Amino acid sequence: MDVNTSSPSDLDLWVEELIGDFAGQRYRVLETIHVSETKFQKLSLVETAGHGKVLFLDGLVMCSERDEFVYHDMIAHVPMFVHPNPKNVLVIGGGDGGTAREVLRHKGVERVVMVEIDGEVVEVCREHFKQTSCSFDDPRLELRIEDGVKYMAETQERFDVILVDSTDPIGPATPLFGEAFYNNVNRVLNDDGLVVAQGETPFYEADAQRLILQNLSKSFGQLYMYNYANLCYPGGFWSFVMATKGLCPMGDFDPARVEASGLAFTYYNADTHRAAFALPQFQKNKIGDLLTPFKK
Amino acid sequence: MDVNTSSPSDLDLWVEELIGDFAGQRYRVLETIHVSETKFQKLSLVETAGHGKVLFLDGLVMCSERDEFVYHDMIAHVPMFVHPNPKNVLVIGGGDGGTAREVLRHKGVERVVMVEIDGEVVEVCREHFKQTSCSFDDPRLELRIEDGVKYMAETQERFDVILVDSTDPIGPATPLFGEAFYNNVNRVLNDDGLVVAQGETPFYEADAQRLILQNLSKSFGQLYMYNYANLCYPGGFWSFVMATKGLCPMGDFDPARVEASGLAFTYYNADTHRAAFALPQFQKNKIGDLLTPFKK
Repeated sequence: MDVNTSSPSDLDLWVEELIGDFAGQRYRVLETIHVSETKFQKLSLVETAGHGKVLFLDGLVMCSERDEFVYHDMIAHVPMFVHPNPKNVLVIGGGDGGTAREVLRHKGVERVVMVEIDGEVVEVCREHFKQTSCSFDDPRLELRIEDGVKYMAETQERFDVILVDSTDPIGPATPLFGEAFYNNVNRVLNDDGLVVAQGETPFYEADAQRLILQNLSKSFGQLYMYNYANLCYPGGFWSFVMATKGLCPMGDFDPARVEASGLAFTYYNADTHRAAFALPQFQKNKIGDLLTPFKK
Repeated sequence: MDVNTSSPSDLDLWVEELIGDFAGQRYRVLETIHVSETKFQKLSLVETAGHGKVLFLDGLVMCSERDEFVYHDMIAHVPMFVHPNPKNVLVIGGGDGGTAREVLRHKGVERVVMVEIDGEVVEVCREHFKQTSCSFDDPRLELRIEDGVKYMAETQERFDVILVDSTDPIGPATPLFGEAFYNNVNRVLNDDGLVVAQGETPFYEADAQRLILQNLSKSFGQLYMYNYANLCYPGGFWSFVMATKGLCPMGDFDPARVEASGLAFTYYNADTHRAAFALPQFQKNKIGDLLTPFKK
């Protein structure tokens, strides 16, 4: 592994994520822990002054120790509490391990398959980002280092919940936003199954949000979108898309199950579950026609 | 007025808001429209590449043309739809005019008093930031350039809704977060009145949020907090505090009134109204004991 470390105590070192060519978010760096170019992407892990460790892929923040709980709570627990009894869960991407960690906290889960294309992300996070990678040794987890698109096209397994924990629709994740992929997601889901995928931001990527839903609508009859606050993603206000074979994330959600689970959460709770589906008017105007009305 | 303009077509010009000393948000600048030091603070207005005009006070983003609708929708319409019939509204601060603009869209409003300490902010926004300052000529608006703390201590007027549209609790706005101020807010509010104030961010300013509520609790028996997504504020996830003399923002909220108002909104709607009060678990853990349970 190509590790480039430095301890720049006398250096004013910053790392920046650019937003188009018109804005940027910068973080003061205490130490660069890892910088490499993998087979698929540029991979960096830095220790920052204000956000703990921050993982970058191709220059974009994936997660920080300070706020990764938000993303991982919301990608995992919203669908896990919509499905009445999720036992088999598939995670596509999510190499840092945070999504699998949250799924595995559900005691009813019997098997998690995680398919990550870039083994180097997993390796670096296992070594240096233990906050997210702490559940890779759970015996219920099968980690496969391979292309999620190919896996989805070929697997004969079936799942209750599929989580697409991907980067943006540029670089290696592009096919994860396409029609062909979602046709296979539908095939691989059980009859009461549902899928959740990273859904970009309504502020800066409203067109991309519409396109993702349009692609999904060719494979799924029930489409939903929900929002969450992300400290380190540009604009701070991001979305997940959810597609189901019939389950409604409001009408089929039983808040009593959240309490009965005995799980403690940092961001998620029964109120934020429901609130996340209340879209601001500008977002509703842009994509509301593609969404499914809630069951009462 | 001290106007400093430049057209740096060949200059790579950026403006940055620092978050403590550990992070920053930068915006590409097309033109600096105004830079001055007023009697109270540093005031800058720039034309950016991605966010239109952006107003800075003491180096902190106050609002941008691209997303000011969120802040102004949420500071104004949430309380305006909680109070059953708001006729007299007081705005403290809000020199850009956006809050008054949203309040004045409510046809039932008879009188708005706006008390801004810094006349130069109003002047610069009237000249250069017309998107927010477009309602200053409404005959129902009385604009007073004076200290809001002093006004609140001395006025004999009474109001249904008070909106404290202030900067952070540093610089000239500090007294607007104090006990003495809120004692007077209580005195100046009608018996069914309510106040909403800028409430910082749960990610970076959790201690400040607790302190604001503690100060408010000495004057008010009913305290609430609600959240919104702000594209240009650090962390993107910010809060307003609400204190009432009895009204509940959930139990006394009638969504039918939103539709009946005939008003079109960009962020606000009846769903976002209710969803805004669903606090993430980490925020609830920090301040939940200071908040009032909702009426059914």
